[in-house]
Amino acid sequence: MKPIGQQKKEKAQEAPAQLDCACFTCPSQEACKAAQEAEKTAPVEEKIDFSNVEIEPLFQDFVDFETFSKSDFRAVKVLACEAVPKSKKLLKFTLDDGTGEPRTILSGIHAFYEPEQLIGKTCVAITNLPPRPMMGIESCGMLLSAVHQENGEERLNLLQLDPHIPAGAKLY
Amino acid sequence: MKPIGQQKKEKAQEAPAQLDCACFTCPSQEACKAAQEAEKTAPVEEKIDFSNVEIEPLFQDFVDFETFSKSDFRAVKVLACEAVPKSKKLLKFTLDDGTGEPRTILSGIHAFYEPEQLIGKTCVAITNLPPRPMMGIESCGMLLSAVHQENGEERLNLLQLDPHIPAGAKLY
Repeated sequence: MKPIGQQKKEKAQEAPAQLDCACFTCPSQEACKAAQEAEKTAPVEEKIDFSNVEIEPLFQDFVDFETFSKSDFRAVKVLACEAVPKSKKLLKFTLDDGTGEPRTILSGIHAFYEPEQLIGKTCVAITNLPPRPMMGIESCGMLLSAVHQENGEERLNLLQLDPHIPAGAKLY
Repeated sequence: MKPIGQQKKEKAQEAPAQLDCACFTCPSQEACKAAQEAEKTAPVEEKIDFSNVEIEPLFQDFVDFETFSKSDFRAVKVLACEAVPKSKKLLKFTLDDGTGEPRTILSGIHAFYEPEQLIGKTCVAITNLPPRPMMGIESCGMLLSAVHQENGEERLNLLQLDPHIPAGAKLY
């Protein structure tokens, strides 16, 4: 289950390195490119196989709206991300939460992502959990991931939002 | 602030309708297309202007982890979406929440989206709020959107996730 962007990149790398197509010298190359661009932006139906997916049963207990509203969820931008020394799981995120003060959050997702993949991404954090020290670093909140099982294995997707959503945008 | 997909589509529509480029008849058209695909999948840095953004101040009060954990957040797939008759704001969503039983949620976001734009999208819902009747329809939960102000105007982005995330995946 690779991110879509990565799949595209791999596909692109299969393209021949050297080309002798007449298109590259023809006078209307720009128009040609534009036409192919138009073709490419047509919606592509990708079949995703969810047949081996298992999810945790939904909660039976209700939560009242007031309790739900006590948590402060925000869009955050990943300014920096690095592995925590001596930890197999933890990544240390430096985040823009819209306040102007960088926020540090630790997340145990190194088994699923390399830190450099995540820089610049727009994610979701709960920002008002009490700070909690982990491996000597204070984690100020939690980044949200979507978790399921597939073929008996845990799969995790860090939530990633449209980059047009600004840091600090509140989730309702 | 249009979704990226929409911006691309508009750009594509500017392409000339008729073309007489040699590329379309040359023998290595496939290779040519592949090369241009490769060029296109190179990362494009888009400058997004966040200078006029205002966000709601972050909560000062902490929430304990147990309180936060009472809310059940899930990835959901939009099976159907339609405007609620006689309502200016409400959209009625029929959602796959992974249980096999369709879930109905009403959301007051018609000012920001047309229902047909949202069909098939992967969104985020809190699924254990008590059902609440709205305009005679029972809404079973809430879809999450990111909200901010821009030039004094409210902007709203319905959270949309990677389509590879299955319905019912739990958010942690």
